Amino acid sequence: MPQHKAPEPRASFYFDDLRVGDRFTSGTYAVSEPQIKLFAAEFDPQPFHLDEEAARNSPFGGLVASGWHTAAISMRLIVEGPLQFAGGVVGLGAEVSWPVPTRPGDVLQVVSEIVELRPSRSRPDRGIVTVRSETRSQRGEIVQQLIAKLLLPTRPR
Amino acid sequence: MPQHKAPEPRASFYFDDLRVGDRFTSGTYAVSEPQIKLFAAEFDPQPFHLDEEAARNSPFGGLVASGWHTAAISMRLIVEGPLQFAGGVVGLGAEVSWPVPTRPGDVLQVVSEIVELRPSRSRPDRGIVTVRSETRSQRGEIVQQLIAKLLLPTRPR
Repeated sequence: MPQHKAPEPRASFYFDDLRVGDRFTSGTYAVSEPQIKLFAAEFDPQPFHLDEEAARNSPFGGLVASGWHTAAISMRLIVEGPLQFAGGVVGLGAEVSWPVPTRPGDVLQVVSEIVELRPSRSRPDRGIVTVRSETRSQRGEIVQQLIAKLLLPTRPR
Repeated sequence: MPQHKAPEPRASFYFDDLRVGDRFTSGTYAVSEPQIKLFAAEFDPQPFHLDEEAARNSPFGGLVASGWHTAAISMRLIVEGPLQFAGGVVGLGAEVSWPVPTRPGDVLQVVSEIVELRPSRSRPDRGIVTVRSETRSQRGEIVQQLIAKLLLPTRPR
């Protein structure tokens, strides 16, 4: 099992509870070489995710995690983190980028910030929240930036 | 192991080999309920991905796969599909959306289309290709739309 540290669970947020600029910091997740290879073997079987020798001769210069593995780990940190949404994290869509790859031994952490809150016109019981989540390594490098639109219920009256 | 069918491997494409409008159809991948729960337990531990009873009472009305699971399966289909890139699939970033969730028993397939080809100004040995990949279920529903920007080498002279 992966070594990771989740923060204490907290109360769930409804749409009304959030403000633009609110920031939330996740626990941490250490990424091992076997995990990188296991994920890649199942979902992204490319040489630079599977084999050190091939990875050394790739543009990455060494073994790196699949971007989708970084995305999945980031989701775990978000789901277990302090930004608990009422009704769960229901994603409508997202923009994701991987400025720097995740490497074996990296310890990842996600900082999420509320960047937009848009009430639904047709459905007063919900709204769309835009969250920018940066996943950083222990070196402070941003291994992923995720801008996600999520569906969130308003607080029941 | 997941049941899936990969097409025959083909030649690798360099940047110069592709044209806007080129389309490629992947093999297929059947998604089982245990796989959905296994992925969710590791990366997206939310009730509607883990437990039928809880899922029935969620907005999804039944067990659904994590969007990141759909993304990972789509990547597998792309990496093993007919659109083989010289140097591999090196993603710079992507927009992803999940119009309809993946459910247990779904058989997924990806159709990819080249939507933009942008040569690098500073580096004549490479370019950026934009690929739109739609992942469909056997019901013809689009479970994911992915618009990805990839780095691709030009054909060596």
